[in-house]
Amino acid sequence: MTLFTGLSAFPITPADASGHVDIAALTRLLERIRHAGADSIGLLGSTGGYAFLSRDERRRAVQAATASVGGKIPVIVGVGALRTDEAQALARDANAAGADGLLLAPMSYTPLLEEEVYQHFAAVAEAGDLPLCIYNNPGTTKFTFSHALIARLARVANIAAVKMPLPQGSDFKGEIALLRTETPKGFSIGYSGDWGAAAGLLAGSDAWYSVVAGLLPAEALALTRAAQAGDTAEAERLDQKFQPLWSLFKEFGSFRVMYAIAEALDLCRIDPPRPILPLPAQERPRVRSALDHILA
Amino acid sequence: MTLFTGLSAFPITPADASGHVDIAALTRLLERIRHAGADSIGLLGSTGGYAFLSRDERRRAVQAATASVGGKIPVIVGVGALRTDEAQALARDANAAGADGLLLAPMSYTPLLEEEVYQHFAAVAEAGDLPLCIYNNPGTTKFTFSHALIARLARVANIAAVKMPLPQGSDFKGEIALLRTETPKGFSIGYSGDWGAAAGLLAGSDAWYSVVAGLLPAEALALTRAAQAGDTAEAERLDQKFQPLWSLFKEFGSFRVMYAIAEALDLCRIDPPRPILPLPAQERPRVRSALDHILA
Repeated sequence: MTLFTGLSAFPITPADASGHVDIAALTRLLERIRHAGADSIGLLGSTGGYAFLSRDERRRAVQAATASVGGKIPVIVGVGALRTDEAQALARDANAAGADGLLLAPMSYTPLLEEEVYQHFAAVAEAGDLPLCIYNNPGTTKFTFSHALIARLARVANIAAVKMPLPQGSDFKGEIALLRTETPKGFSIGYSGDWGAAAGLLAGSDAWYSVVAGLLPAEALALTRAAQAGDTAEAERLDQKFQPLWSLFKEFGSFRVMYAIAEALDLCRIDPPRPILPLPAQERPRVRSALDHILA
Repeated sequence: MTLFTGLSAFPITPADASGHVDIAALTRLLERIRHAGADSIGLLGSTGGYAFLSRDERRRAVQAATASVGGKIPVIVGVGALRTDEAQALARDANAAGADGLLLAPMSYTPLLEEEVYQHFAAVAEAGDLPLCIYNNPGTTKFTFSHALIARLARVANIAAVKMPLPQGSDFKGEIALLRTETPKGFSIGYSGDWGAAAGLLAGSDAWYSVVAGLLPAEALALTRAAQAGDTAEAERLDQKFQPLWSLFKEFGSFRVMYAIAEALDLCRIDPPRPILPLPAQERPRVRSALDHILA
């Protein structure tokens, strides 16, 4: 089992209104993921709100993770930033704090060119000196990786994996086959977009980078294991239980819904970072009902 | 003449590789704009690379601007940030440093909902307590303002202007007429996108938020005054001189080209913030030639 394989669970990062991380609440979420037996933790991913946290707070979060679950479950840390030197510093911080791997999205303000993303990734991968996963998330970064760029980056030292968005027309098999021919042997290909991830695993992807697993790790793991075993019927049965939640994710964005799930499960009662608003109160019963559907 | 009227010139913010602002070089650019007689300075706009600078460096830049040209030309300061509390702090900093107005773009990572942008703007406008211009720049923020949202924001205290991207099909007249009916009397409607701004002024817009004026203020001002006077022939003649530069802006993005212009004009020799790369060396002769076409 390599670092970027199986179920990677992405928790929210509980923080107060000024962006100060609540270490006790974060540790509770991490222990829960470890206890469920997920394959890795995706700390400070998009779901972890890394873009809204300062370098100091991100360092505190990584230190808290390695102090609590380090050595028991691999911790992969998001180190994206708008500036290359800042992303490099975050990567060094994560390494120094004992992270096992890195996750890097090409955050942008001025839209980035392909060569700029290449050089940015090469610089951060070198500075971090840990296995790094390319975070291909056009929905937040507005940058779409070409296959040619992924292939080029896959040959850079330390770059070991890619986290893909769901493919056009759900053609996982075609996309995975193509990426396998374009990247070196052992390069990991995984998917995010929770509602398509089981299909990705059934089609032979290496990993599911899962939002929901950050708060419902046991249920997401059952789905992962069924799909990894090629048990299509069981995977589809379990995926059906998540359907009402996937609908909420699509309608409101998973980031907002995750805070409502954390509250409904009594894990923590914290608002997302402003300007992101909490889910409207009138939608909370739908969250409760979606959770009941999963936990039934 | 109100604050958000006429030619607003957006300089780059010269800084070293670690994001430390070169105050002497910045001051030279600001004095040049003031000397040319532009109507305002758009400090720390997208062209000013605000997204790549820390709060401390942004404060230093505003203090340098008010110390050098304060009281001689209005200084409008970009205060965008991913977090609402950070944008509020930047707005307070700008006010305390003597800025005349604010410019706010809805920077985003998690894509923002309309209500989130509304509350974000209302909070920053209140904190800044200065006339504020809505920075509608989908190319960098990935958020597009609906007319309904602009109309709603135009009724918030301190929100006095909007900086629009070029309209679909170049229908300035139609868009301006519509926005005039939807916003209170005196609300300023201006455009960015240098290659269409003269047409916008000819169609009755209040302001041109100009990238090129940050480094070529006299030439941009001549074009502005011709268009404001309704002299279509002269405006078109002057606009033609900018055509090779507009082509470079469209091809490489104005942000990258501006650094090459600054070097070609011997104003400062500084690279854009990484990950943004300088214009390739082989394109520099085109910049020189485009400048010759303007300055001839």
